[in-house]
Amino acid sequence: MGQPAWREARSILTRLLSSQEGVLRDSAYLQSSCCIPQSAVTMHLPATIPNYTDFYASREHATAVGAMFRGKANALQPNWLHLPVGYHGRASSVVVSGTDVRRPWGQVWQEESKQAEWVPSAAVDYELELGIFMGGSANQLGHPLRIEAADAAVFGYVLLNDWSARDLQKWEYVPLGPFTSKNWATSISPWVVTAAALEPFRVPAPTQDPAPPAYLRSQAGCNYDLDLRVGVAPAGRAGPDPVTHTNMRTLYWTPAQMAAHHTVSGCPLVPGDLLGTGTISSEGPGGAGCLLEATLNGTKPVALQSAGTHRAWLQDGDRVVLTGHCQGEGYRVGFGECAGTLLPALDLTLA
Amino acid sequence: MGQPAWREARSILTRLLSSQEGVLRDSAYLQSSCCIPQSAVTMHLPATIPNYTDFYASREHATAVGAMFRGKANALQPNWLHLPVGYHGRASSVVVSGTDVRRPWGQVWQEESKQAEWVPSAAVDYELELGIFMGGSANQLGHPLRIEAADAAVFGYVLLNDWSARDLQKWEYVPLGPFTSKNWATSISPWVVTAAALEPFRVPAPTQDPAPPAYLRSQAGCNYDLDLRVGVAPAGRAGPDPVTHTNMRTLYWTPAQMAAHHTVSGCPLVPGDLLGTGTISSEGPGGAGCLLEATLNGTKPVALQSAGTHRAWLQDGDRVVLTGHCQGEGYRVGFGECAGTLLPALDLTLA
Ligand SMILES: [Ca+2]
Ligand SMILES: [Ca+2]
Ligand SMILES: [Mg+2]
Ligand SMILES: [Mg+2]
Ligand code: NI
Repeated sequence: MGQPAWREARSILTRLLSSQEGVLRDSAYLQSSCCIPQSAVTMHLPATIPNYTDFYASREHATAVGAMFRGKANALQPNWLHLPVGYHGRASSVVVSGTDVRRPWGQVWQEESKQAEWVPSAAVDYELELGIFMGGSANQLGHPLRIEAADAAVFGYVLLNDWSARDLQKWEYVPLGPFTSKNWATSISPWVVTAAALEPFRVPAPTQDPAPPAYLRSQAGCNYDLDLRVGVAPAGRAGPDPVTHTNMRTLYWTPAQMAAHHTVSGCPLVPGDLLGTGTISSEGPGGAGCLLEATLNGTKPVALQSAGTHRAWLQDGDRVVLTGHCQGEGYRVGFGECAGTLLPALDLTLA
Repeated sequence: MGQPAWREARSILTRLLSSQEGVLRDSAYLQSSCCIPQSAVTMHLPATIPNYTDFYASREHATAVGAMFRGKANALQPNWLHLPVGYHGRASSVVVSGTDVRRPWGQVWQEESKQAEWVPSAAVDYELELGIFMGGSANQLGHPLRIEAADAAVFGYVLLNDWSARDLQKWEYVPLGPFTSKNWATSISPWVVTAAALEPFRVPAPTQDPAPPAYLRSQAGCNYDLDLRVGVAPAGRAGPDPVTHTNMRTLYWTPAQMAAHHTVSGCPLVPGDLLGTGTISSEGPGGAGCLLEATLNGTKPVALQSAGTHRAWLQDGDRVVLTGHCQGEGYRVGFGECAGTLLPALDLTLA
């Protein structure tokens, strides 16, 4: 069906729900049969997700993390400014907001004992990302999606938390990338905000220097002015304390570029495929999209002000809440929330 | 349903097809209605594949490739002997044997001009692997599959060719692993050979030193004595020339260990999930499971004897044919073939 049909459906729904249109507004009967209170429903994943891919598109994030491990001069890897670096994630562990996740076990290297040990992760992190849902049939096997057609193949956006176990990641990721450190859970918000709804909030993407190869060049390259936040609530506290405040507009690589690069060698993107942008960070205090970056690899804990405590990494019982919105004149397009609580590790010595 | 049901179905079918059983043997009518000549059918993928993961489990292969790029002393990365290194592959581009694949375009770094260029790959390779089909519900989100239960969660095996573009891979893989260099096509043979059929060919896995952590340790660790070959036929030639001859028995990490490690942090394996073993190589002439290793990164082309030519990398029109079998006393368990022809790159300047 594609973008024209999605836009038509959206505009019909918008009209029916508007205060100018009498059909629904003036009929208590229609209202009670069409509208269900949010408190009465259980949200599920918005789509069956055939494939999930995660990118690494924030220059601020890649630079900060790179500087931490390789020094400022070598912060960005040689390929980073030439293509949107990405890797295949795990679709079977994408869960909807509200699903509790479990502190994972995994393998870490103990430098003192020179042994690989099987332990619960001691460095669980969140990653604030935007999720991109592909719609329609983007492209066929062997035929790249052209960048001019990439925006129209995006159905919409969700908040995405790429839960990450940093100690597992550090040990396993050479040379084939993150695996068990990431594949235990990825949370997304249940409402897909359509690309059409975000139209008023398009902003030009950052200028790219060096200019990328032709298949990544676009006249209309854009991001969204989309305010993004993360809060963490320790067990027993109702409201989360703020830990991250950033904006999607800072991304170096755009969603259209991610989709085009994903298919450059002929990989088919199919309806329901989910792309993560990678951690979104902006410069300045509170701009880091994950604890790895915010705490300088766990060495400088961040404050949870009202809870009167600190976090180097997430603790058992912590509830992580992602929110996002675009601010119009007199209205907001909200993303709802993407929340999840970290449960303690299983007691595998007994299991 | 699980392993007991699969085994019962297999034993009923085996009995019905045996020459000792009269029902089918003595009825031309039943034979003509149950049996369809292979030449009259089109084979499809044996399962809908929700997720595909690729490992790197051959010590001979990892050592040879590592030595090529880092020298003999540092051939294996520090983690390699402690866990089965693996990464998430792309399920949407897994195709059945007989599907032609297209030389991919992608991004490579040109050292002379210091530019990233968008070009057709000049280093297309095959990788000889075994594919492992998971069955039943192996494990739930957050609950690792125990190694003792891992063998029973394997439904069966296929031949797998992980087509790879080495020039794209070299440029893109740091730090998140292979992406567009691998996601354009993975071919598998159409017949799943059940674990039950391979039972007589179980052989002990190699001794592991150092011993891995407990979740990877198994009393019954085993591989299969499974002869594996690759042939390449240039365009216009009927039969392929041999380029690889190896055996699955040499794998350092077993299928059960791959499955257990995949789930160690709680990632759910679901029915139809496909795991690749990674390139299977053995020592000695002709033992390399891919051209990267056989030709020392394209520097020492291999001979296609009867075709009177050589290959550093695959050429347009080349047909790559994987075969495999287990040799019993007086019988064979065959895997059929996994074949595919490399088509020329699209002319994207015209498209
Ligand atoms: Ca991520
Ligand atoms: Ca492979
Ligand atoms: Mg994740
Ligand atoms: Mg492949
Ligand atoms: Ni429900």
